[in-house]
This record gives sequence, structure tokens and C-alpha cells, in this order.
Amino acid sequence: MWTFNNFPSGKVKATYGFSPDREWLDKVRLSSVRLTEGCSASFVSSEGLVLTNHHCASTCIQQISSARKDYAANGFYAQTEGEEARCPEQEANVLIGITDVTAQLMEATKGMPDKAANDARKAETARIEKACATSERLRCEVVSLYGGGVYDLYKYQRYQDVRLVFAPEFAIAFFGGDPDNFMFPRYDLDLTFLRIYENGKPLRTKHYFPVSRGGPKAEELVFVSGNPGSTNRQDTISMLETQRDVITFRKLPYLAEYRGLLTEFQTRGEEEKRISQDELFTVENSLKAYTGEEEALLDERFFAQKRGEEREFRKRVESDPALRRKYGKAWDEIARVEVKHRQLWPAYQFVEILYGFRSDLYRHARRLVRMAEEYPKPNGERLAEYADARKPEVTQALLSAAPIYPEFETETLTWSLTKLREVLGPDDPFIRKLFGKRSPREVATEAVKGTALRDVAVRKKLMEGKAALAASHDPMIALAELVDPYAREIRKKMEDEVEPVLTISEESLAKARFAVYGKSIYPDATFTPRLTYGQVKGWEEKGKAVPPFTNLGGAFERATGRFPFALPESWLRAKAKLNLQTPFNFVTTNDIIGGNSGSPVIDRNAELVGLIFDGNIHSLGGSYGFDAALNRAVAVDSAAILEALDKVYGAARVLGELRRQ
Amino acid sequence: MWTFNNFPSGKVKATYGFSPDREWLDKVRLSSVRLTEGCSASFVSSEGLVLTNHHCASTCIQQISSARKDYAANGFYAQTEGEEARCPEQEANVLIGITDVTAQLMEATKGMPDKAANDARKAETARIEKACATSERLRCEVVSLYGGGVYDLYKYQRYQDVRLVFAPEFAIAFFGGDPDNFMFPRYDLDLTFLRIYENGKPLRTKHYFPVSRGGPKAEELVFVSGNPGSTNRQDTISMLETQRDVITFRKLPYLAEYRGLLTEFQTRGEEEKRISQDELFTVENSLKAYTGEEEALLDERFFAQKRGEEREFRKRVESDPALRRKYGKAWDEIARVEVKHRQLWPAYQFVEILYGFRSDLYRHARRLVRMAEEYPKPNGERLAEYADARKPEVTQALLSAAPIYPEFETETLTWSLTKLREVLGPDDPFIRKLFGKRSPREVATEAVKGTALRDVAVRKKLMEGKAALAASHDPMIALAELVDPYAREIRKKMEDEVEPVLTISEESLAKARFAVYGKSIYPDATFTPRLTYGQVKGWEEKGKAVPPFTNLGGAFERATGRFPFALPESWLRAKAKLNLQTPFNFVTTNDIIGGNSGSPVIDRNAELVGLIFDGNIHSLGGSYGFDAALNRAVAVDSAAILEALDKVYGAARVLGELRRQ
Repeated sequence: MWTFNNFPSGKVKATYGFSPDREWLDKVRLSSVRLTEGCSASFVSSEGLVLTNHHCASTCIQQISSARKDYAANGFYAQTEGEEARCPEQEANVLIGITDVTAQLMEATKGMPDKAANDARKAETARIEKACATSERLRCEVVSLYGGGVYDLYKYQRYQDVRLVFAPEFAIAFFGGDPDNFMFPRYDLDLTFLRIYENGKPLRTKHYFPVSRGGPKAEELVFVSGNPGSTNRQDTISMLETQRDVITFRKLPYLAEYRGLLTEFQTRGEEEKRISQDELFTVENSLKAYTGEEEALLDERFFAQKRGEEREFRKRVESDPALRRKYGKAWDEIARVEVKHRQLWPAYQFVEILYGFRSDLYRHARRLVRMAEEYPKPNGERLAEYADARKPEVTQALLSAAPIYPEFETETLTWSLTKLREVLGPDDPFIRKLFGKRSPREVATEAVKGTALRDVAVRKKLMEGKAALAASHDPMIALAELVDPYAREIRKKMEDEVEPVLTISEESLAKARFAVYGKSIYPDATFTPRLTYGQVKGWEEKGKAVPPFTNLGGAFERATGRFPFALPESWLRAKAKLNLQTPFNFVTTNDIIGGNSGSPVIDRNAELVGLIFDGNIHSLGGSYGFDAALNRAVAVDSAAILEALDKVYGAARVLGELRRQ
Repeated sequence: MWTFNNFPSGKVKATYGFSPDREWLDKVRLSSVRLTEGCSASFVSSEGLVLTNHHCASTCIQQISSARKDYAANGFYAQTEGEEARCPEQEANVLIGITDVTAQLMEATKGMPDKAANDARKAETARIEKACATSERLRCEVVSLYGGGVYDLYKYQRYQDVRLVFAPEFAIAFFGGDPDNFMFPRYDLDLTFLRIYENGKPLRTKHYFPVSRGGPKAEELVFVSGNPGSTNRQDTISMLETQRDVITFRKLPYLAEYRGLLTEFQTRGEEEKRISQDELFTVENSLKAYTGEEEALLDERFFAQKRGEEREFRKRVESDPALRRKYGKAWDEIARVEVKHRQLWPAYQFVEILYGFRSDLYRHARRLVRMAEEYPKPNGERLAEYADARKPEVTQALLSAAPIYPEFETETLTWSLTKLREVLGPDDPFIRKLFGKRSPREVATEAVKGTALRDVAVRKKLMEGKAALAASHDPMIALAELVDPYAREIRKKMEDEVEPVLTISEESLAKARFAVYGKSIYPDATFTPRLTYGQVKGWEEKGKAVPPFTNLGGAFERATGRFPFALPESWLRAKAKLNLQTPFNFVTTNDIIGGNSGSPVIDRNAELVGLIFDGNIHSLGGSYGFDAALNRAVAVDSAAILEALDKVYGAARVLGELRRQ
């Protein structure tokens, strides 16, 4: 997960005889796309055509669907440019520059005590980002790398007009469903083509990856360019314990219960099934991923190894008087503040990061309430996500044309409010204030039934600010206003009492790590562009070799005709025409994690040979460490992409565009 | 949790100045009742009247209810003896004798290797139990105490005609619902009166506990007589790790998901809500309890203390050459076999102990299939639960008149089959055989729709054996027959490869523990009668004193009118008549655990002053240790019982019977 400005070309050369140079790296970076909802993608034509995963576009696909036109079930194909359908909430970024701003941030916080330094750092960050984002078409973000050892300013081209071009049926995009998720062998066409528009026209793209006809070969050197979301490999033991005993541990039953609720909600009828499908997929995917993470943390051997590494690192710091004086206290400081972190977490999770308020309408209401409160403040004093440089994404989210389903909203809000009450307890003063004598269902029903926020025009009008909100008498706004003071109080405690100590201490550890180990490792993932190298390669599972490739024929063998093992009609009809020997999915040794979904797999010629869509079961512990012997990335083979577009979908327009390149 | 034949009267005398003598202990034992589905109870009159918890009788209450007569919602009161309604599946036991059979079992297994010894122990156990159970009215069980340090034969009077006399509404029995469960202050009338019949007439009971008018006083010495289900306090570290990392850990998301499913199923309608209420209660209760257990195991300080205790014990054993030679290997032997245990667990849990088959119809089918297979075998070679001495409970379960709801069965079986496939994986050979190309819903629907097993007469007919089963062509029977070979295979592996090593090693540790520490501690809980002593006493929670009593007025203050904080109509109407100062619930320092529900709290005069129905939140770690400073048992005050029977329910017949004693 190397940053583009610190890629170890020498190491790659030593192992594989190929040294990516500056020009090659720039081309790869500029051909790579970040999808801001949490995915990766890449340009595959000079006309703004973008390839990503189906599961990265599934929210968009559901949002442009309706009871009559179910593009998730049936797939989507724009026969003409005019039929390409705009995604209501999609934003795409291309990284165009990286500037080191470490010195500026250090200068701004110099000599200050923890909390003051934290406030100053935030203000300076908002200032730097605003100065960089000279137009709404630029997105600028200060990124903390190596836990604060380096602060870099990432400057992206921002694109908010992203349209759907082609998507296969959910049944083949996610063939095998939850049982096969994070498994291999695998048979998924987990892809979607999008197109980026600028000024209402397809974007002209100088840099893109031509799609390889042949796909990769076994053992071949391949690169993955994408945006790994988050890893915790440099966390201290006390931080890992917080994850293991509180944060991840409590997410599991929460998500599992929600999964059960959604599963049963789906039995209400076809339409209920359709509107809850994307949510169920997301929940199941998260649940399986978090389960893997928790199991890694519960693994005694693994945790002992982590403890050993920390002991060793600490010993090296403590044996050097200068290092010891500067950085020796960091571990204990972190351990001390983690106690506070664990105490605050439940309220923070349920009230501020909305585990207790699962509702799009509530999200809109909170956004409006916070915009009215934050925008009048000076830029540097706002909640970070309401800084001037972030306004375009707030506006896009608020004015999204995505449909909202009241029946579903009522169920998910009722349930999450019940969990909120359970977690904080019925005697908590905030809970008493929120519910009074009302039940969770009453609170949810009143707000969902009475609100006008489903209407984009209403939301647009309410952007005017506090007076407009007051005049609205909207019950969902009233709910958000009732909750917001407490949410802010908890967040402030987290940001004033936990975050400053963690930031300073992690910065210390980062500097100590540079002093002891240099920059020979890459920083933890931060959902920013990274490049990894690896090989197409299977692995050994309980003494048996798992081959690196599957082929199209395997999907037909695995099919039962029943969800999630049912192939779509289009595939059954096309079977005779397909070359069943075509490689379908493959695995590589590249180090990836959630956020890398949709990443291109490219060869040394910067041709796209595959499309990352998953990791194997061992990769689920990847948040905490990478085991090259077992962890594998899972990708769709480019040969399968072309074969399916041709023989199954007859998608001549897309195929022609790819072949022209 | 002392056994009745090793009660430390001297210790009690030293602390409280009261020494329970043999006569007192016998009277208490013979007044105490075990409810075999997993609860405790006691006689409170000379006419077989039994007091237990509402949640111990809730399955019965639901079973005798129907869409028209919802006794869970509305309560139940038999105005005459004739109206007392028989519980279809309830069995009650009174312990009438304890015999030490350690020597017999040791003799039967002497010098044998592990697996052979295990088989011989089982055969000898079946023989001893059969010899003891000279009539169907006796229930005899060999109990392994101190992890096999002592084997005692427990002989019970067996009663299968148990009838419902009085139950309040669920809303007051479980006032506060899941949010208040395991919490205190508390305001629950969690009680039910049952009556034991013999030969169609109320049982004459010489021994019973008169119900105290005044209830207990603060600081008063009190005893709890009941059947704590299971504790793991003497487990080794490797056994605890299996619980923490595999067994309990995996139950949490399973139960949470099931809870979500049931919650949403309840929204289908009033009848769906009624028929799933008891299941939802059970699942929520288990989920909260297991969560507490898991949190105790994840607590670093607690686990470090356990490690310390083991280290100390092991050091004492290893420093004595004789002990070392005899017992020194036990820890490593257990650790070795725990690896196997963890591997086998998922299949064992889902296939043998039926996490993958949540269906009463399936349970009936499996029972029939196994009866046909087991009963023709010699007594000593059968699966333990089909031994001759156990026949009465098998028959009672099979011929239960409890209603079965196909709509609900289809949902729970579909869901649990989905989990089964998820846990074993779609490529597991057993899963392939079970499902073929069918989906979980197809398998469940075919079996539930096609079966005739809802009819008791059909089940009775099928008790004839294999020929009758074959002739039935019943699809649920066919499903059970398809599954059974694999279930037996997994069980056999568990019983041949894990159990023998665990049994022998735990026996070794028990003997080592006697040698080092004597019998100064009580054995782990085994769902057999135990007696504990303690005091009525609050505790300190985060620096604040929690008083030991609540009163009836508190319930009215806490009520919101909405489930689970809605008082029933009967209480709202009776409010003016009630003495609101009457003590309602109280806490004591007695060491209890699941299985103790329904236990009488008695004073030194053997008067019933309270009824155990819960523990506080700290008691949830009680499986692994008891902290006298924080762990508390929660009980209904006898004064509240009498006040409510009188003023709320006008239950003159029951009240008169209690007052006559």
C-alpha cells in the first residue's frame, strides 16, 4: 500500500526486473479513480469510461431503479450515450498532486498543550484545504500518514456527474452470495461501467488503462492501484484491545441483529425485497469482514506476536536516551486515554455516528440542522466536514434525487432507536429526553410520517438556514434538533479528551518508528491512492494447493438455480456461445483491504488485466497484519470481462469503445 | 452452591450465629422442586402448590393459550381446582436421596485406556440409573461433581402432571423487558403458581415453605435453594479460551441475528406476535447473558487473574513429585484436545445440538428416528438420553399436546438451515447431500408443509419403530433420517476423541485440587439441587449505593404506558387500593446462576421470604467467578406477592391456601 510519492521501485526491480519510473507512476495515478463513497476505479477509455465493481455502484443502481425497473435484478445497459443514467450521489476523484505540509502543521501547533494544538491543527488544516480548493472542481484533503509522522496535502480533480453505462445482473455480479463472499474459488462478474461527464459531456481522458484481451498469467507481476480504506497495523496493544473488546466486538451482534431484521423484512414482498437488497448486502459484507477481524484479534498467537513487536519496538526506544525522552511515554499515554475512549464509544457510535438513527431522512435532517449551525461560523472553527472545502459533497448528498421509502425507513429507524435505548439504557437522561413516554416505534413513525424531507425541493429550500428550519415545523428536523446538542457534546468530549492525546502520541510513535526503522514500511491505509505490487498466485489451504484461476465453466458447474447460486437467464442462454475455458476470477498476493474494491489490476505495460473485487478469507485479518503466504486479493479476469460483454450481453457499444483504445 | 450433603453449617454459624442442622436441611431439600426444563421452584402449601417464575412457566402458558385465549398477555387464574390446566411438557422433581457411586464408577473403568474407560463409564452409569429407577415415578441421575472428583447418584421423585394455577400478565411479570433484564432497581412480579398432581389429585406435601407476610429485612441471613445450571469456574485456561474464542463468541451473532428475525416476524400481526413471544424472550435473555459472559472473558484483568490461579495451582502440583506424576500432565492434555474440540464444535453445535434445525417438528422427527434406532439396543450402549431410566421424559416430550405453528416453523427452520449452510459452507459434503440444488426455504417448506407430525396421534403411532417410520413417507422424518448419520458421526467423534480426554483430565485436576485445597469450595453447577447462603444487601455502583429494596410505588413511577414499560390494566385499576410502600423486589449476596430462576429465598425459619428471578448485571460473569462485592441475586419480595394476589388479582383461592399454612 505504497504512496505514489514513496514507491519502492528499486525493490520491485530487484525481485521482478521491472522498475516503474516516474512517468509510469504518474500515468497509473492519473488513470486511477477514487469513488468517494468508499471504492476504487479506473479509466478504461479516452472518453471518460470508468470500470469499477458492481457492489461499488449498487447503491446507484438501486437508486435509479424503481418497482417497475429493477436494474439490480435485470442489469442495466445504455444502448446510447443518451441512455446513460446519472448516479444521484456518486463523486469521483483523480489525484493530481501531493504536497508535504508537515512543517506548516507542526509550526501551527508548536509548543501548544494537547487540546489547543488539536484545535490549531484543525484550523490550519481547514485553511490549507480552502486555499488549495480554488474551485468546486477541486477536492483538497490533508492526510495524516504514518499516524501523523507525515502530513500531505492531496489535491484531486473532483467529478460529480457520474453516469451508469453498464451493469450485469446482481445474480452474476454476486454469484455465490454471502456464503461465497471472501471465498475462493469464485465466479463473479462483479463489475460496472460508469462514465464521468464534465459540462454535460463525456470527459476526455488522456490517461487510462487499455483492457487486456488475454488477462494475466500465473506468477506474473501485477500492480493494484486503489484506495485502501483503513488498516490498524501500527496501533498499540491498548488500541487493539479497544477494537477487540469494545468497538469490533459490539458491532458483531448489532450487525447480526440488523441482518436478521432485514432478512425477515424481505419476506414482506417483492418490492420490500428490492428496496432493502443493497442494505442487506452491505450489512452482510460488513458482518463477515468484522467477524474475520475480530477472530484475528482473538487469535492468541497473532496477538502474542503483536505484543512481541511492541515490546521490541519499545525496548529499542527506551534503550536510546534521546528517543526515550521524546517518545518513551507515548504507549502509556495512549493506554490511559483508551480507557476514556471505551467509555465514550457507545454514545459516540450510536448518537454521533448514527448507529442509533438508521434513516436517510434523519441524515438529511441532521445535515440541514448542522449546515444552519456551522456555515455561519468561521471556516476554521466548524465541524470538519462542514469546512468550505467540503461544501460540494455536503450539497450533493443533500440534494440527491435518490428515492426514500417510508415503510423501510420506519422499520430501520424503529429498530435502531431500540438499540440506542438498549445501549445507553432507559434511565440515561438523554434517552429520557428523547423518548419521554414514547416507544421507539412511536418516535420513528411520527417523524417519518410527518416529514416533508423526501422532497428534494423542500430540502433545497431548508438550506436557507435556521429561520427556514424553524418555519418548517418538520418533525424529522425537530428530532435532529433534539438530538444534536447531545451528539455534539459527546463528539466534543471525544475530540477534546481522546483525539488530542491519541494524535500527539501517535505522532510520537511515528517519529520513533522512523528513527528506529526508517520509512521501509508503508503507512496504514487512509482511503487515499496507493499502489501495491504482487503476483498472480494461489496458496496452500490445509495442505492443499488452491489454484490461482477459475474459469467460466466453473460457474455453470456451481449453479443450483436457487439464489445465491442461480445464474441469470442471460448466462443460461449464452452458455453454448461462451468459451467456458476463459479465465473468470483469479487471486494475487497484493496487499489490499476494504476500499480497494474496484481497483484495476495492471501489468507492467499498464494494461488492465483484472478488476479487484474481494479478498480471500485470510485477508480479513488484514487490518492488523499481512501474511503473504495466505492473504490473497480476488479479481475478475479481463478476459472474462470481454467475453461476457460480447457473448452474454452483446454490449457492442461498450466493447467497441474498449477495443478502440 | 453447596450440595445438600456437604453444607458448611459451621461456617454459617460462625458468621451468622445460625447452624442449619440435618433436619432443617432435609426439610429444605424436600420442600424444593426442580423443573426439568431448566428452572427451580418450591412447595408453598400442603396441597402440592408450587411457586416458580413466570418465565419458567411461560412456555407452558403459551402452549395452553390460543389466538382467542392469550394467557401470556392477560394472565391466568383458575378459580376452581377444575380449571387448573395441565402443562403439556412440564416435569417436576424432588430430590429424595444422594448416594456416592464414585468407587463403583472407578472400579468399572479401572486400568482402561481413555476411550474404553469412557464407554465403560457410560454403560455403568446407565446400569446404576436403571437399577435405581425402579418405577417411572423415580428419576435417577449419576452426577459428576468437581469435574469428576465425585460421582453421586441423585434420586428424585418424578412428577409429570403439573398444572397451571395462577400467572399474572407478561407485562408485569417482565415489566421493563429486555432493557431492564439483569438490571436493578427492578419492579417485576415474575411468578407463577403451579400445582403438582398425582393420580389425578393434588399431591399431598408434608414439606413446604410457608410464605412470609413480612418478607426479609435488610442485612438478614437468607438461603436460596435451587438448581444452578452450569458454571465453568474450574475450567482450565485452554477451556476458557475455547469458550471465549469459539463457543460463546459465535453464539452472540447467531442469537442476535435470530433476535432481529423474530423482532421483524412479530410485525406480521397480533397472532404472529403471540406465537413467537416466548421464543423472542428466551433468545433475548440468552443473548444478554452470553454477552455478559463473553465480556467477563474478554476482561484482561479477570483473565489475568484466572491465569494466575492456574499458574499457582499448577506450581503446587508440580512441586510435589507424587502429585506431579499423577496429575501434572492434565493441563497439557486438555489444551491438546481443546484444539480438536474447537474444530468439531461448529458441526456439533449446528447438526447435533440443532442450532441448524430450529423447529419443534424436526425435534419430534429426530426423537422418533432415534427412538427407533436406540431402543432395540442394549441399555448400556445407547445414546445417553435414550437409556431406560430416561424413557419417561422422552415419551412426555414426544406426546406433548403443545400446539405447533407451521408459518413460524417454516421461518425458523429456513433461517437456521441458512445458518447451517453458512457455518459448514456450501461445499461441505454433508451440506451438498442435505440441500442438493434446493434452497434452505425449499427444504424447510417441503418438510413443514408435508409432515403429519403436528398430530400427537401420528407421533404416537410412529413410536412403533422403524417399520412404522418407513411406511409414513413423512418428509420431516425423511429429513431427520438424512441428517442423523452425520449428526451421529460428529457426536461420536466428540464422545470418542474429546470427551474421554476431558473427563479423565478433569478428574485428575479434581483430585489434585482436593489434595491441594481440600473440599473447601463447592463444585461447579450441574443443574442439581444446591443451597447457598447470603444476605439481603445492596451494592456500590460507580461510587453510589444501590439500595437493596424497591417498592410497588416505583413501578408506577417507571411506567410509560408503552411496552416494555406498560403496566397491565389490572395494576392501573388497583393502584388506589395498593400499599405502594410494600417492598417489591430485593437483592441478596447469594451466589446463583441460570437454573436458579424460581428458587425460593428462605429465612432461618424456612419461611419463604422471596422468589429468585434474576441476577444483576455483574452476576453475568458468574459462570467464571463470583465477586461478593458486586454480584447480586434479584428476587420478588413475598410481601409483594401477597399484596398483589389480594389487591390486584383478588386471587382468593390461592391466597387462602397460602394463609392456611
